[in-house]
Amino acid sequence: MKSESPVIAIVGATGLVGSEMLVVTEERKVPCGELRLFASKDSVGEVYKFHDQEIEVQELTQDSFQGVDYALFGTSGELAAKFVPCAVKAGAIAIDNSSHFRMNPEVPLVVPEVNIDVVTAKDAIIANPNCSTIQLVPVLQAIHRAAGLKHVVVSTYQSVSGAGKGALDELWGQTIAICNQQEMPMEAFQHQIAFNCIPQIDVVMDNGFTKEEYKIINESKKILGLPELRITATAVRVPVFYGHAESVHVETEKAVSVSAVHAELKKVPGVVVHEAFDEYPMQIDVAGTDDIHVGRIRIDPSVPHGVSLWIVADNVRKGAALNAVQILEKLIAQGN
Amino acid sequence: MKSESPVIAIVGATGLVGSEMLVVTEERKVPCGELRLFASKDSVGEVYKFHDQEIEVQELTQDSFQGVDYALFGTSGELAAKFVPCAVKAGAIAIDNSSHFRMNPEVPLVVPEVNIDVVTAKDAIIANPNCSTIQLVPVLQAIHRAAGLKHVVVSTYQSVSGAGKGALDELWGQTIAICNQQEMPMEAFQHQIAFNCIPQIDVVMDNGFTKEEYKIINESKKILGLPELRITATAVRVPVFYGHAESVHVETEKAVSVSAVHAELKKVPGVVVHEAFDEYPMQIDVAGTDDIHVGRIRIDPSVPHGVSLWIVADNVRKGAALNAVQILEKLIAQGN
Repeated sequence: MKSESPVIAIVGATGLVGSEMLVVTEERKVPCGELRLFASKDSVGEVYKFHDQEIEVQELTQDSFQGVDYALFGTSGELAAKFVPCAVKAGAIAIDNSSHFRMNPEVPLVVPEVNIDVVTAKDAIIANPNCSTIQLVPVLQAIHRAAGLKHVVVSTYQSVSGAGKGALDELWGQTIAICNQQEMPMEAFQHQIAFNCIPQIDVVMDNGFTKEEYKIINESKKILGLPELRITATAVRVPVFYGHAESVHVETEKAVSVSAVHAELKKVPGVVVHEAFDEYPMQIDVAGTDDIHVGRIRIDPSVPHGVSLWIVADNVRKGAALNAVQILEKLIAQGN
Repeated sequence: MKSESPVIAIVGATGLVGSEMLVVTEERKVPCGELRLFASKDSVGEVYKFHDQEIEVQELTQDSFQGVDYALFGTSGELAAKFVPCAVKAGAIAIDNSSHFRMNPEVPLVVPEVNIDVVTAKDAIIANPNCSTIQLVPVLQAIHRAAGLKHVVVSTYQSVSGAGKGALDELWGQTIAICNQQEMPMEAFQHQIAFNCIPQIDVVMDNGFTKEEYKIINESKKILGLPELRITATAVRVPVFYGHAESVHVETEKAVSVSAVHAELKKVPGVVVHEAFDEYPMQIDVAGTDDIHVGRIRIDPSVPHGVSLWIVADNVRKGAALNAVQILEKLIAQGN
């Protein structure tokens, strides 16, 4: 049983996701007795505001977690693999945004609206899903309730912020370079991203799918508790700063109506339904906001029963930092 | 029987597609006794180079077509509806890039690699398909030969050039305005396109699909000669200048292998297969080129038999002007 005013640590606090975890923790007034910020040596001494305090970034070491109740990890998978066990050993519960623990059968993979009930008092590590998965699964679960999922095809339109701060700089830098006919910076991505789409996110596997596509496929199955779900994906990076969009075509087991899908989606906290066909959500509109927006919900006449739709959310907030903080809130409320 | 050095007219010659028709006609050394350029009053007197000639743009009127053998139309559907009949009445064969005649059962809708055989000596109007359809159907036909098409799901990533010259200016103008913190031009699109994706191309219909999506669906069925084909689409505008990309998931009737799809695709003239999973085509690479590029060809494990792939082509060239000129070449060669 943790304190009601717990000690919370944010690990990787200076990164895109870590710094957003700080913002969201403050915005949502998460109960917090003390906040500690950890990052690599380079960032030590940087100061972040948290409510009326100024908090100095400390160096992340194996001994960082003494007295910490909850540790939010916004680091790479490599760093998570190394430091999450240190946090757990010190008695903290770790909520990890990296992919490292997600498919570990011992570790719950959680989108609170969908499956917070899988977390037990024994769980010391909770995995935060991939950004493109988080915005997808609450919608799929609602359709599953309405008519049963038979087959799901996802194509993504993912913003560069999913690849971190350097990727934001690169899209901007390439755009400015093109405007000024200068040489383009090219470090964060394999190819030019300004005015281009790159059909590769994360590494390509032997079967031709990318790891990002397999995250969407495997994490969705695990979170929905549907290991046999037939789902496929193509993940594409687009020249947009914030927000991921997804074109989703779902074949359902049973007959489905647009109004039934609307009704089920409206039951989901944090999901906003755009009912008018020509008033759809877009990435520029959702940047910096919390909700998952679903629009263009229409019957797909190419299958006996099915529905097509367009899902948009801020990948750094609901797709990462907000979802992690929502998990934290549930744990605190449950006294885990 | 037309002359082997025919009189060719380009109608809408100053537009994005019309001016590319001129470029492609010259590049491909299409047999041509005389070239006439027509556009609206505003453009009269503009001069275009064609081989060693300088050709002045004339005003398009109902009497423009006397003596014309072939008229390439790069105009709106409205203008095509009005002037294509004038061309036909004057004895010309019209190749029309607009959507106006495409679904008319009397009018052949042609991608030369796929169905040039549907054109007969009696046809006075040939319709040029929609850009996003043209790059799709040769690939679908090859997969159909390899294993039979059972279900096709398409999500597009379409560049702004598909919406004409004004749309190119708007993406550029919005980008520059954002760089300079100035007010953005907003005329060609309903919403901001710079650093954003818009999930609407053409108007939204009562069933929630857009006309662009129905062009992909209906034109593909007609060109492939598969009126019962199960195919669905989501069409999205992305902030890219030239080139359309498509994420395509195909369920096939029979078992299929990646190598069989490669083999069938390689038989199609104008199709380039990118075999290595991590060497895929992208829009910036195909701008200004003629071929249809297919990459990321992988087995889709979510269906009993199926394949997923990524198709890219220059929408102004193969997706419009080039395909029209290729139809013209076939007609000239056949002596239609």
